[in-house]
Amino acid sequence: MIVLLDQRRLPAEEVELLCTDVPALVEAIRTLAVRGAPLLGIAGAYGVALAAARGFDVEEAAGLLAGARPTAVNLAYGVRRAARAYEEALKNGADGVRAAAVALAEARALHREDAEASARMAAHGLTHLEELLPGGGYRVLTHCNTGALVSGGGGTAFAVAAAAHGAGQLRRLWVDETRPLLQGARLTAYEAARAGMAYTLLTDNAAGSLFAAGEVDAVLIGADRIAADGSVANKVGSYPLAVLARYHHVPFIVVAPTTTVDLGTLEGAAIEVEQRPGHEVTEFSAPAVAGVTAEPGAGAPAAPLGTQAYNPAFDVTPPELVTAVVTENGVVSPVTRTGLAELCAGQGKGTGSGQG
Amino acid sequence: MIVLLDQRRLPAEEVELLCTDVPALVEAIRTLAVRGAPLLGIAGAYGVALAAARGFDVEEAAGLLAGARPTAVNLAYGVRRAARAYEEALKNGADGVRAAAVALAEARALHREDAEASARMAAHGLTHLEELLPGGGYRVLTHCNTGALVSGGGGTAFAVAAAAHGAGQLRRLWVDETRPLLQGARLTAYEAARAGMAYTLLTDNAAGSLFAAGEVDAVLIGADRIAADGSVANKVGSYPLAVLARYHHVPFIVVAPTTTVDLGTLEGAAIEVEQRPGHEVTEFSAPAVAGVTAEPGAGAPAAPLGTQAYNPAFDVTPPELVTAVVTENGVVSPVTRTGLAELCAGQGKGTGSGQG
Repeated sequence: MIVLLDQRRLPAEEVELLCTDVPALVEAIRTLAVRGAPLLGIAGAYGVALAAARGFDVEEAAGLLAGARPTAVNLAYGVRRAARAYEEALKNGADGVRAAAVALAEARALHREDAEASARMAAHGLTHLEELLPGGGYRVLTHCNTGALVSGGGGTAFAVAAAAHGAGQLRRLWVDETRPLLQGARLTAYEAARAGMAYTLLTDNAAGSLFAAGEVDAVLIGADRIAADGSVANKVGSYPLAVLARYHHVPFIVVAPTTTVDLGTLEGAAIEVEQRPGHEVTEFSAPAVAGVTAEPGAGAPAAPLGTQAYNPAFDVTPPELVTAVVTENGVVSPVTRTGLAELCAGQGKGTGSGQG
Repeated sequence: MIVLLDQRRLPAEEVELLCTDVPALVEAIRTLAVRGAPLLGIAGAYGVALAAARGFDVEEAAGLLAGARPTAVNLAYGVRRAARAYEEALKNGADGVRAAAVALAEARALHREDAEASARMAAHGLTHLEELLPGGGYRVLTHCNTGALVSGGGGTAFAVAAAAHGAGQLRRLWVDETRPLLQGARLTAYEAARAGMAYTLLTDNAAGSLFAAGEVDAVLIGADRIAADGSVANKVGSYPLAVLARYHHVPFIVVAPTTTVDLGTLEGAAIEVEQRPGHEVTEFSAPAVAGVTAEPGAGAPAAPLGTQAYNPAFDVTPPELVTAVVTENGVVSPVTRTGLAELCAGQGKGTGSGQG
């Protein structure tokens, strides 16, 4: 059984969601009860281990899990790691029970590695901020949710902000509410409040005024997939922030573990962007209000009946708009194909150095 | 008595709101039951006439009305016109009843002029679109609500889109939902549906993906105040669209009557931007859902309790990001101080010509 914190219910309630089989976990992933690129990888790996332990068809379970959401590459990665460990154990003569234990151990290893990666990203990111913006007292804008809720550790972009906060250098965290599902308002605000940060919530479209007023020192976001050329797929609304940041000469920093880099996706245009149902935009659901409405018509209408909506879950920011990619292996800035490939091969030279 | 369509209840219900005195009208303006720059001018003028007819202190009423919202210059303009007509009538020997009738006649004149201005802006705007984008079949992105709901006529930016639709040249109207109060989802979608347009709703932050995909031919927006230098204050979220439009070489066109141009405001930095309560961002109100919550705590929380929000009602776009300003007197493009001043003096040379 897998126990998840049901993120659809936050911040109103902290409710555990119990998944006793793979279809339940797939549903939890699809409806965003569990979400966030690194956490999806961990959940996928545990899902494979669960299928193995309960004697289900592991290959079929892995296919279902990996296909639950198409853009986040970590999900497929986590599923593949646990499934491979299981298959190799069988190949090496283990019985089903033993192979399931191997899959579970692999999921736990991924979980632990992700926590360690968070800590290293936080340290690299903070050092990079200090190099870019000497003097500290950062006013950081972030989008969507990238903290402990998405990770085995402290998260990605949020972990860097938390490190700055811990160092007494975070003057303000500007939190984009992140429509349509309000991960910023519901989840990042919740994590920022718990961490005791000075934070302020805003509608996504109010970020422009902050940039114009010189109130943003850096943008820190996560990623759901980074192509080999450095194109970054992240929550819809990231690309407009990158354009605003460029226009206002503000650093736009992407924080993600190397497992988010997909060297098999050669460029941004090749990234499949998940299109989600229109009713996430046209309706508000109660009582979770901002959570995901499972069915069209279940929420209160915000638009006339029959209104069509365009609802991509992600957008793609080209590498020329990304100041730096911070990973657990170090920082690549400017963002180049070679620099990224070197980081992924573990040849990163640590933080701050421009690998190109 | 002034009868208004209560825009807070749209699109769920079409409810009339009756204002029998000025404080009720001021409250309707503050809570956005009546909104939109041109309509605020008309409502302000009728408010003065109402105060006069009911024997209240007209000067005090004019002060209350003009101060109800600080950014939209049309409100102060409409109030001033009716108040001046009233005062001049008194000065010329009219009694109170007769002066009140004069104020009402002035409000009606403003109402009629605004309807005529809409028709002329629509014609000028369509001609300008045809010059900029030969071939027709426009995919137009709009923000907030600028149609018949804000005007004595067909509105401003929406009226241009409607003219294109009438000419069979509107391929798609992309409708920004316009957080926090969702005027796009609630009002523009409602007007687009009634007009039979092909329209699609999107979250404000999804506009970036549309630009990147080449799906936007022009941005059409209204204005709440245009400074003498051509800086445009409009609904928050307009400025990020202007930056995106510039980055993608897409025309960014502002449609507003010359009454929106405030030659007394010399530049964008001098425009007072209304800051609205944080609970518009941190809460969703039911059953109107997206309407204005009158009191903090009355809505369902979208963020943790105690969350602070940054909630400017408007942002300011500098003239260098504005392709054209379309008024009832013609078009100014590029946008210059001289060109604007000439248009306001009625010396506009019609559409399309660059006055500089």
